Amino acid sequence: MNQHLEFFSREMTEFGAQWREFLEVGRRAGKFPSAVARRSLEDTDRDINVWCSNDYLGMGQNPAVMEAVKEAVDAFGAGAGGSRNISGTNHLHVLLEKELAALHGKEAAVIFPSGYTANDGSLSVIAGRAPDTLVFSDELNHASIIDGLRHSGADKRIFRHNDVAHLEELLAAADPDRPKLIVLESVYSMSGDVAPLAEMAELAERFGATTFLDEVHAVGMYGPEGAGIAAREGIADDFTVIMGTLAKGFGTSGGYIAGPAALVESVRGFSRPFIFTTSLPPATVAGALAAVRHLRSSEEERRRLAENARLLHRLLTERGIPFLSSESHIVSVLVGDDERCRAACALLLDRYGVYVQSINAPSVRAGQEILRATPSATHTTADVEKFADALDDVWQELELPRGGGVREA
Amino acid sequence: MNQHLEFFSREMTEFGAQWREFLEVGRRAGKFPSAVARRSLEDTDRDINVWCSNDYLGMGQNPAVMEAVKEAVDAFGAGAGGSRNISGTNHLHVLLEKELAALHGKEAAVIFPSGYTANDGSLSVIAGRAPDTLVFSDELNHASIIDGLRHSGADKRIFRHNDVAHLEELLAAADPDRPKLIVLESVYSMSGDVAPLAEMAELAERFGATTFLDEVHAVGMYGPEGAGIAAREGIADDFTVIMGTLAKGFGTSGGYIAGPAALVESVRGFSRPFIFTTSLPPATVAGALAAVRHLRSSEEERRRLAENARLLHRLLTERGIPFLSSESHIVSVLVGDDERCRAACALLLDRYGVYVQSINAPSVRAGQEILRATPSATHTTADVEKFADALDDVWQELELPRGGGVREA
Repeated sequence: MNQHLEFFSREMTEFGAQWREFLEVGRRAGKFPSAVARRSLEDTDRDINVWCSNDYLGMGQNPAVMEAVKEAVDAFGAGAGGSRNISGTNHLHVLLEKELAALHGKEAAVIFPSGYTANDGSLSVIAGRAPDTLVFSDELNHASIIDGLRHSGADKRIFRHNDVAHLEELLAAADPDRPKLIVLESVYSMSGDVAPLAEMAELAERFGATTFLDEVHAVGMYGPEGAGIAAREGIADDFTVIMGTLAKGFGTSGGYIAGPAALVESVRGFSRPFIFTTSLPPATVAGALAAVRHLRSSEEERRRLAENARLLHRLLTERGIPFLSSESHIVSVLVGDDERCRAACALLLDRYGVYVQSINAPSVRAGQEILRATPSATHTTADVEKFADALDDVWQELELPRGGGVREA
Repeated sequence: MNQHLEFFSREMTEFGAQWREFLEVGRRAGKFPSAVARRSLEDTDRDINVWCSNDYLGMGQNPAVMEAVKEAVDAFGAGAGGSRNISGTNHLHVLLEKELAALHGKEAAVIFPSGYTANDGSLSVIAGRAPDTLVFSDELNHASIIDGLRHSGADKRIFRHNDVAHLEELLAAADPDRPKLIVLESVYSMSGDVAPLAEMAELAERFGATTFLDEVHAVGMYGPEGAGIAAREGIADDFTVIMGTLAKGFGTSGGYIAGPAALVESVRGFSRPFIFTTSLPPATVAGALAAVRHLRSSEEERRRLAENARLLHRLLTERGIPFLSSESHIVSVLVGDDERCRAACALLLDRYGVYVQSINAPSVRAGQEILRATPSATHTTADVEKFADALDDVWQELELPRGGGVREA
């Protein structure tokens, strides 16, 4: 074995059983959030209730979505067969991009194979191409934003999470003549809190900054037609670029940005993760298009999601179980300890058939370990009540800290 | 408009009509390489014969593959609903990884949402994690390899394309105690030539280097069971990591690496484009699994592909039309001029209904513009003959340089 491989063997031995094992989850179309689970080393399946999926609205099992995927498979086959520029653009790609631009009221949109590559691939161009751009980025922005900004090579200032005053201070200290870009999310993945979008937009306007708003945990779920939190606040126009995903609220796969035509064209022309990759299968695109269209006209899924979220917030508060924010459907139950968070996750699965993944470092800071619970539009009221009761039992058994209601991380 | 946005507007104006417009291609399942094409600004569809798809074996329209996708949609819905660690691992993901490891005779495999992220995400870990690793990379390696190595932060030496003596020279000059990694492809995407794998493997052994072999244009298509070029040469064991794609020979979507367990575990544990992304839809994975299994037992598609490639090589040579290599099914017809390459592409499409995308900078170096033609297993003999005749006409009309047969780029 050479020196290079020796490193990895040594590391594997050192880490031992700490390597992540992924729970196998067989979601059952038509029956989400019910699923069967299997640990890789076991052979027996067991029934579970999933509490950590990002298919928040159950669109993955929406009949119109499933039918659209299958019809497109019959029409066009299983894959795209090429990159967007080399035989891999189907009419469906163009239709979906038009639909997303319309959803967000922007001139143009462009889709990527994933949300990660949408952020990485678009920010590397948007932050990197205009010379001397200075970026202002929320400290809790997602890994894909961090990577895209790093790959852009642009100078960066990090503002404290959702801290308008800190952002203002940094903007005021910057050279007024430098091009500026503010990058933030609307709903934060791990804390579930919502950015003060109106104040942020006002600052951007005052200091002449472009804004890039990641709404991956909001598109489909909030606002008129599911256009997101900025749209709900009536200020979508104040954000230059809206970034979203097709893999959460829209139940399928892929990511996108919507924004001014010139900026989107530049991303299409220069983004390496966009250019040098096979485009999404037309069948996936067909499913996403059906999901977007459905959610532009149906309020039912959003209503159910909001009801379930409110119910869970109330039940946890009553039981004295701490969670990070009641501003969204992401209910991050705070454990705050690596081992006990894993133990709570295992106990919930083994004894209650409830699957909610423990989130440990590096996805959250050490000491901020959470059970990131996500009620979906497909959970019943009984599911929500059982989940709250199961958490209550586990809190008792593991003697986890109570305190009730929203707790600042 | 702020300074940042002004840059992009100015750029758009400057570039004008040079922005890429993607041809819309509606491939027809069961009838590849036949398709309908539409320019974005036109409304009329027209019938075409596709000569630039990477669905080399037509597996995108294989009935078993299409059926597997549809069955998995019925069973599991349209999307995965989460990242691999957070509810997004279906049993199918595990089965596909086992199948790919078995195909390549490696201990383990891991799949990514795309080939781009497979290279970017695995090389950033493989080159970046072992301290002080020195990388040796072929100068024509794909953009995704270049990006992964750049993101790893590792020191890098570039060797001249397929140049064994130059690689040896660089290895000999390096500190013997540094961990070393050699990164190369088997079949090069834009030139279609094949690396001298035996000599490269011998050097790696002699200098104690790990080898990372990108076989995206070979898996499914060459070697026993479609395991690739190294397997065809009987030396797959001499390469530490085999990287492949599910989107070309296997006709679906996604990318992967197969290699030693410790190294694959490290990628699973530390690769950001792997961790922070929704996993491939189970339906896509089901299609890929069906394709891999089919091609492990069927020789028919590989035989047809090889026949068509040989026929095209012969017909072009007879007509004095220069191409870069006869070593693979990638037949890069050399035009060597940006404008005339685009003109040839347009003429082929408009007059002959033949779609072969012109490849211009930055995908190839300026002056090396090509029509990258890829016969597939699904082209008929008549298709190949018509294509060669169409090229002949276009060469005549545009007075393009002749010379016949293989031309060094």
